[in-house]
This record gives sequence, C-alpha cells and structure tokens, in this order.
Amino acid sequence: MLHLNLLRLVARGGPKRMMATTTKLTSVEVNDKTGIATLTLNRPPVNSQNVQLLEDLQTSIAEIESNKSRGLILTSASSNVFSAGLDITELYNTDEDRLRTIWRALQNAWIALYGSSLPTAAAINGHAPAGGCLLATACEYRVMLPNRLIGLNETQLGIIAPKWLMSGFLNVLPQRVAERALTQGRLFTTEEALAEGLVDEIANTKEEVLEKCSAFIGSFAKVNSLARSLTKLQFRSENIKEFEKIRNKDLEDFVALASSPETQKVMGNYLETLKKKSKKLTKF
Amino acid sequence: MLHLNLLRLVARGGPKRMMATTTKLTSVEVNDKTGIATLTLNRPPVNSQNVQLLEDLQTSIAEIESNKSRGLILTSASSNVFSAGLDITELYNTDEDRLRTIWRALQNAWIALYGSSLPTAAAINGHAPAGGCLLATACEYRVMLPNRLIGLNETQLGIIAPKWLMSGFLNVLPQRVAERALTQGRLFTTEEALAEGLVDEIANTKEEVLEKCSAFIGSFAKVNSLARSLTKLQFRSENIKEFEKIRNKDLEDFVALASSPETQKVMGNYLETLKKKSKKLTKF
Amino acid sequence: MLHLNLLRLVARGGPKRMMATTTKLTSVEVNDKTGIATLTLNRPPVNSQNVQLLEDLQTSIAEIESNKSRGLILTSASSNVFSAGLDITELYNTDEDRLRTIWRALQNAWIALYGSSLPTAAAINGHAPAGGCLLATACEYRVMLPNRLIGLNETQLGIIAPKWLMSGFLNVLPQRVAERALTQGRLFTTEEALAEGLVDEIANTKEEVLEKCSAFIGSFAKVNSLARSLTKLQFRSENIKEFEKIRNKDLEDFVALASSPETQKVMGNYLETLKKKSKKLTKF
Repeated sequence: MLHLNLLRLVARGGPKRMMATTTKLTSVEVNDKTGIATLTLNRPPVNSQNVQLLEDLQTSIAEIESNKSRGLILTSASSNVFSAGLDITELYNTDEDRLRTIWRALQNAWIALYGSSLPTAAAINGHAPAGGCLLATACEYRVMLPNRLIGLNETQLGIIAPKWLMSGFLNVLPQRVAERALTQGRLFTTEEALAEGLVDEIANTKEEVLEKCSAFIGSFAKVNSLARSLTKLQFRSENIKEFEKIRNKDLEDFVALASSPETQKVMGNYLETLKKKSKKLTKF
Repeated sequence: MLHLNLLRLVARGGPKRMMATTTKLTSVEVNDKTGIATLTLNRPPVNSQNVQLLEDLQTSIAEIESNKSRGLILTSASSNVFSAGLDITELYNTDEDRLRTIWRALQNAWIALYGSSLPTAAAINGHAPAGGCLLATACEYRVMLPNRLIGLNETQLGIIAPKWLMSGFLNVLPQRVAERALTQGRLFTTEEALAEGLVDEIANTKEEVLEKCSAFIGSFAKVNSLARSLTKLQFRSENIKEFEKIRNKDLEDFVALASSPETQKVMGNYLETLKKKSKKLTKF
Repeated sequence: MLHLNLLRLVARGGPKRMMATTTKLTSVEVNDKTGIATLTLNRPPVNSQNVQLLEDLQTSIAEIESNKSRGLILTSASSNVFSAGLDITELYNTDEDRLRTIWRALQNAWIALYGSSLPTAAAINGHAPAGGCLLATACEYRVMLPNRLIGLNETQLGIIAPKWLMSGFLNVLPQRVAERALTQGRLFTTEEALAEGLVDEIANTKEEVLEKCSAFIGSFAKVNSLARSLTKLQFRSENIKEFEKIRNKDLEDFVALASSPETQKVMGNYLETLKKKSKKLTKF
C-alpha cells in the first residue's frame, strides 16, 4: 500500500520536473561561516540513480573530503523525493555490461559515503526508498520531513539488498527489526522511522532539516578531528573490510539476479504500473 | 520463584494428560485458503522434547518446505504449555550415546527451523522455557498468550545454552539484555517479554494467537518469495555457518557436561522436586 | 560544557583530598553474610588511573576470584568521582616506555574485570569519564548516583578509545548510539545514561547504590555457578579473543598516538586548563 503511494508520487513528480540537463547531476555548496558542505542530488524528477548521478555523487564526496570541509550534508533538489533509488529503466532490458557498470557505481558511491572521514548527515527532504535509504543510512545522522517514506523495499522488486547494505542497515536498527523490514520490503513513515531509530529527528521544512543537520555536525566542534575520524572508521572498519572482500562476488551476484528472466519480468511489470499511474494522473 | 511455578504447572498437567501414544508426535495442517501450514507439537502433557518429538518436528518442517506452503506456524496441542524443553528424564542416568542422539536431534530440529526459507511464526499458546524458547526464537515472529513464561533457564539446571542458541537469542534481544537473561536463567512473563522484544504481540486466546501469526505471514503476500528467502538467509547465514563449524564440538561439549556427576546431581534433584510436587498436587 | 563541569569538580576535589599514601590504592572487603566482595578504588582525590592504581586493581580482582566470593562490586572511596580515567599527568612529557607501562596496566585491569568469571556490578558513586566508564562497562550491571556524568570522552583529548573498549561499549549500547557517543566524546548525565541503557538503575545514596548492586548479584543465588560463568564467557569470548589478538598492536598504536607532538599538545593544554581552574577555585 505504502509502495503504491510512492509510485503515485513518483509519477506525479514526473511531468512537472523532467528538465533534461547535460550539466552535472550533483552540486556542492560550502557555507563560509560554518565550513559545512551541502551536497545536493539534482536529477529531476526523483533523483533516480543512474550511472551519471552515482558517479557525480562519488566525485562530489571526494571533492568535499579534499576541501577540508567540517562536515557533509546530503540532500535533494526535489521538494518531495530525497532519492527514489536505482533507476529501474536502466536495469530493464539491457546487457550485462551495463548492469555491471551501474552496480559498480552504486558500490563506489556507497563506500565513499559510508567510509567518509568527515561527519555526515542526511537531510531527507522527501521519500527515500531503496537506494535513497541506502544513501541516508550510510550517513551518521538523519533528519527527515514528516509524512514521507523510507526503507529498503528491494524484495518487493525481486531484488535483494546486498550484504554490505544490510550491514549498514544493522548499524542503525536492531537485528530483529532489520531482518523483518528487509524481508517485508517495508517502507517506514517518517514517524515510524523515528520510533525505531532509523531517523534521528523530524523537522517541518527543508530549512529546518538542514539546520538540524548542521547542529549535529556542530556537535563535533570541540572534538579533535583526527581522533574523531579514526574512531568512526574503527566502528565501520569491519563492514568496510567485509565489503572489499565480497565486492566482486557481489557484483556478479547482482548481475546474475538482475538479468534473470524472473527479475526482468518483475521489473517490466513495475515499469508498466508506473507508466499507467503516470498516464492516469496526467489526465487530471 | 517463577521456575517453581512452572514446575508446579508441569506437575499439575502430568497426571491429567499422560496418554501414551505410538502415533507421530507432531501434526501438520495446511489451510487451503491461505496456504499457511500449522505445525502442532503433540506430546502430552507438556511437549517435553525427546528424540521422537524432535525428529518428528524436523520431518514436519521438511514436509512443509517441500509442499510449497506460504508459511509455517509452530504451536502446541497443550492448552498451557508450548513446550517445556528437553525431556530431563531422557538426560538423567543414561549413557553417552543416548545423550549424543538427543542433542543431535535438537541441533537438527533447530537448524531446520532457524534456516527455513519460509516465513515462520511461533504461536506460543503456553509456557516456553528452555527448549520451548529455543524453538520460538528460531522463528521470525512470536505471538503469546498472557501470563505465561518464556526464557532460556538452562543455567538453573547446570546446563549452558549452546553458542548457536545464544546467537539466535541475540537476533531477538540486545546483547546486554541477552547476557543478563541467560546468566540468570531468567524466565520472562509474557508482558516482560513483549517489553524487551522477545515476543512481538500478545493475544488472549489460542485462536487470536494463530490469527496474528497468519497476519504476519500474510504481510509477505506482495513480496517476491525468492528474494524474501535469500534476504532472510543472508541475515542468518553467519550464524548458520558458525553453527555448522562447531556442530560436532558442541555435541561433544554437551555430552561431557551433561554426563558429569555434578550436572547429573542437579538433574536428579530437579526430577525429585518435580516428583514431590506432583505427588503433593495429586493428593488434592 | 559537561566536560568543563567535570574539570571544575576534579579541580575542586584536589586540594581538599590530596593525602599522599604509600599503602595500596585499592581495598577489598568481603561481606560475611552475603559473600560479596566490595572492591574500592582509593587514590584521592579522583581515582585518576596511574600504573599503581591499575596494578592494584588487577591484584584485587585476582584475590576476589581466588577467594570464592559470590560476586564483585566495584566502587570508589571518593564521594564525587568514581574514577576520572587515566592520569593525564603520567601521559604528558614522558617517554615511550612509561606510556607502554601504563597502557599495558590498563589493558590488564580491563581484561581481568571484563573476563571475570564472577558476577560483577559497578557502584558508580560519582563521575565516570573515560577510564572510569571503561571500568564500569566491563561489569555486568551498573547502578549510579543521580546528576553525575559517564562516558568515553577520549576524542575530546585527541585520544581514541581502543577497539577492545569499543567492543565492551557495544555490549551495553546499540551501535548507532555507541558510534555517535564515541565520536562526539559524549558524557551522559546519569539520567541520559539510564534512558540509553548505559546504566541499569539510579540510586540516591552510596548505600543504596551498593544495595542495588548486591541485589543484582543476589539474583544469581539459585543459579549453578559453573554454568553461569561459562555462559557469561561464551557471550564475551569473541571480544576477549579479539583483544588477545590485537593486544600488542594496540599497545604500539597507543604509544605512537599518545607520544605524537599533536596529542602531547592537546594534553598540555588540557593540564593547563585544569591548573587554572584549580587556582581560581582555591581562591574561594
């Protein structure tokens, strides 16, 4: 049910916002006063993740790391969606090389964010299903607008969340809650997410969301930054090592699963539903 | 205190229900409408686990897996006890081969349930100490009648919960809570169990308990079942691998501990207490 | 802010209590009735941990283990501070051998307490920053006076909490809470600590704190003590094994970090602040 609502939203955003652009799909702005960098995902209408967006994201993270920013806030240019996750149109009816390229781009973007030495916060100013939730949970802190949805709903698409993503999810949620949510492909409302600890705060406007993220990063003001980043990496190093060990196997597992006739069929049905919803909605 | 209450209950159930039976000790019923299989433990009076019950349980799980059921609900034919755990009379005053056989049967039943690819729920319609709690926590969801007891009280009998069972317990409870409960041999009331997350819901009648379990399994209706089961196994694979690695050592450790004079003495005292309680109660 | 309050307290306690003593810095008292041993840290004014205190602590733990006590309560002779953590004056402006000696003493004291086969409880009758929190979280239960502070604030001093300490912290707190607290160097008030599970109970006087610790140890009265200690070690064995594996590397990592000019400078500034506070306060 939640999922259908989301499809509707995605579809609704579509016609209004589809302005093709050849420029980069992410932008970085550093606040001179606070030294905090805001990284904005900007692929209208719903920041669905194609190779370009993921590569731009990775580049922007690297740029912020090298700029000696005091922290990184990840947010979205869309007013309703943080990121809709992987662009299913790029996974459907394609060849294995293309599947490999997009999955590798997702892996690279995730590890860059998850393993960042900087303080990181997600300003979740809209829905964050699948790959959107993946980026949010790679950060250290999450502030979200009310009445939006967040979660790893991969099983509903016949895909499975990879082990490294599962580990990141387990950093945030208890095992019992995480196993159930992932097997159900559950999307949490903002309020449910707060109750379980999947997000840390709710704020009513994008400005407030960004302010609360800045305040979190400001909480490290008196902390020695080398000790801070070594401590963070110590917490995450086991998952990072495990990820590096299975990275290639994970890539081939994904390609095999995503290119299978069964999964392709589920994706085809999904895209069909999306198209119908979109047509229906644009009539009004 | 809690433990004594349970002994009393076990004892009370005794004389009323001891109908020896040569038939199988478990039964399976599949609901034609929902496709959900209900597996009932049926060894009166208290479903204490002997080799036969454990082997029947394993067989029934395998049968349900191969029948393409939509899910598995584990419950008990007794009105007051889900399962009282391992049958201590089979552990007392016996030889090492017999100890080895029963422990192997317990290992096999547990791994069959814990690693099942199906959605699993425990309809805990009565007390669930020791091996009863083991079966319940191997499932993905737990619904329980009020005012019953559940927990791993092995330390009170001089036995230690094996490492693989501890891992299953840690899937459900935070480490701090789990360590304390296991060292204390704590039995939680239904209400305490709910507060800690050891059970997920309370229901007032067996029918309601079964309905809530069905509703949980129904929550996977729109989920791709292959993706679901791969996701579940990914969560549990580390514990499963670890179990396979230590399975034989665990077996020998158990045999050594259970056959030691100290443990045999504790068990003897326990059975004596049980007999006295039983006599005392049958006088009334 | 919290940290400055603590500095003030440490400074205030200073002149009042500095009675040099050549006797042992810990004492052990066994209650004849309960069989519970109380281990008191007694290095005025704030139980800052030097080599002597840590070695005495380790000796006292070993003594209690061999005395067949029924449990161990760790507390402090000071009325306001449980333990202020490592004595920074011993880390500042010293040679590598001295750094190695104190860190090894800390490692030894921690593993003796964390791996103790006895039931252990911390009667936290005062502030417990850094090494104070380390000792408290090595125990199985924590009771604390209200309005005190507890936490691992190492990052504020440019030090990082070692991996083995982090693991002990993760026994008590969820990963999300633990990562954030350690990167921020957060000190929790007693009330915040209770809410997160970092302490288990609050009590208003030292007597009550000790009583509640005794009650916790009393909860094992009917439990088989061998089964209890094997169960406890089974929970902790992975961390203990991991500790033994990295023990030497951890020692050299600490020496390298603590002797670096950057860390020495942070410590120097810290001691300077402490001195100023102390002077200012002694004027009144």
